[in-house]
Amino acid sequence: MVLFPKKIDFFELIDRAIDNLAKATDHLVDMFKNPADFENKAKIMYEFEQEGDILTHDIMKELNKTFLTPIDREDIHALASRIDDVLDLMWGAVDRMIVYKITKPSSEAISIAEDLQMTGSILRKVIRELRAKNYSHVQEHCIEINRLENRIDRLYRDALGKLLNEPNDPIHVIKWKDIYQLLEDASDRAEDIANILEGIVLKHA
Amino acid sequence: MVLFPKKIDFFELIDRAIDNLAKATDHLVDMFKNPADFENKAKIMYEFEQEGDILTHDIMKELNKTFLTPIDREDIHALASRIDDVLDLMWGAVDRMIVYKITKPSSEAISIAEDLQMTGSILRKVIRELRAKNYSHVQEHCIEINRLENRIDRLYRDALGKLLNEPNDPIHVIKWKDIYQLLEDASDRAEDIANILEGIVLKHA
Amino acid sequence: MVLFPKKIDFFELIDRAIDNLAKATDHLVDMFKNPADFENKAKIMYEFEQEGDILTHDIMKELNKTFLTPIDREDIHALASRIDDVLDLMWGAVDRMIVYKITKPSSEAISIAEDLQMTGSILRKVIRELRAKNYSHVQEHCIEINRLENRIDRLYRDALGKLLNEPNDPIHVIKWKDIYQLLEDASDRAEDIANILEGIVLKHA
Repeated sequence: MVLFPKKIDFFELIDRAIDNLAKATDHLVDMFKNPADFENKAKIMYEFEQEGDILTHDIMKELNKTFLTPIDREDIHALASRIDDVLDLMWGAVDRMIVYKITKPSSEAISIAEDLQMTGSILRKVIRELRAKNYSHVQEHCIEINRLENRIDRLYRDALGKLLNEPNDPIHVIKWKDIYQLLEDASDRAEDIANILEGIVLKHA
Repeated sequence: MVLFPKKIDFFELIDRAIDNLAKATDHLVDMFKNPADFENKAKIMYEFEQEGDILTHDIMKELNKTFLTPIDREDIHALASRIDDVLDLMWGAVDRMIVYKITKPSSEAISIAEDLQMTGSILRKVIRELRAKNYSHVQEHCIEINRLENRIDRLYRDALGKLLNEPNDPIHVIKWKDIYQLLEDASDRAEDIANILEGIVLKHA
Repeated sequence: MVLFPKKIDFFELIDRAIDNLAKATDHLVDMFKNPADFENKAKIMYEFEQEGDILTHDIMKELNKTFLTPIDREDIHALASRIDDVLDLMWGAVDRMIVYKITKPSSEAISIAEDLQMTGSILRKVIRELRAKNYSHVQEHCIEINRLENRIDRLYRDALGKLLNEPNDPIHVIKWKDIYQLLEDASDRAEDIANILEGIVLKHA
């Protein structure tokens, strides 16, 4: 433990992690809408997940070395964990499609991916506003993310209804239920990120 | 951040949130035992879930504005989160029944709901004892909640055994497995509430 | 709250809990490789889970009574919770096998159990090194646990592929998917233990 370490800019580290997350959501939409060559596109999603692992690990390492942090350390910890979760879950959904030999995303999966992409792009705005100490739009952006999460909830619900109530092979149902669950969980964790960022603004603005 | 803000009574806020949770468990038993008009009764469950969202949000907002809290802020945060979880999960179970077009709760679902109701009513007692600084019965009440959680565990286990070992349509199995899982998770999170309250007493009594 | 209580050795309590966990992983491998008399062996697994409950409860009780702790209280709390989770999940997998009347573990389940056993034995080494303030090998041990977790991930993935892509009875699929999920979750929570221990070393070494 160094007493006067160089100042760590945690917001910059979080910004890089969110930027990586937002790029991963762009890629998810691209691969769901253009599923040709799905396996190779999945490999790129894996790279985003791996990059997320490195960025999370870096944040945790700096956090453990730093005695005083500009924002509450539990908030930094929670942000890094939730960003990592979203990437793990998106990668998990894509990987499950590979394992289950599904290479044609359903229309509901595409819609969920598009809303995740919008969420990613708003999260990028929010973290940049926080870095610029420009707090006036943070709350409305977070409300917009809550709205998107509710929309993904409804898409998930509709997808489950269609899957379980229409005549379908049970094995097909089990596979898709798994994939939808992972995408829905990714959305929940992305909303957590917005809630933590909103909480930081409430404490510091 | 105001230096000398008006004192926030966090126990009162938690009490209101637990009271809302307990009322929701009463409603769950009512709608499971009298499933006529299930869709309209589900709407009332949704209102409890929405009220829970508002109460949680209020607690988190006050928590972010308050520098010194009478009880550890992580305990208040965890209580509000777990109360919110129980309501989300109970609403989730009911909503899944609507999505899956199931309007006749199984006898196991009814038994689980009745034990959740008892849990809700004991939680209400505990928070009121805490507010009255009357700690002598808190531990026995929390043990009673642990006992109820164990009973729900066994009901869940029996329900799964019946569902999976008796000849059943796989789609029917997938639907009910989902609903039982949500009810069992609600029970786990309700036990968490008891454990946090017990921990607060151990720290402060 | 006593001002100068006798010093609690939290590392000793954690060591006992990890030792119990490691013994439970030994037993899991034994019962998976020698599944004769599965029900009686399951009862012994239940005893490990119960012992884990008691050890976790003891740690939490001491934590609530202690004002100053040698390591961050949230780290102690998280360690005790994750150790408890691993035992709950291993017991959950075994219990689900009983409920589902499965008494012949698959080869993938055996391989996962063997990797859990190795993880348990490395965790035991790490906690003993921490107690001896011998930090030089902690990081490599934790990397080894991460490697094992990745291997369990791949085993889980392969098991799911085999289960869902080969012609199988859907009910059989649902049962085994559940069991694999519990074992995979146990592995994730075991990796969390390694990560928390590594974090403690980074903060204190």
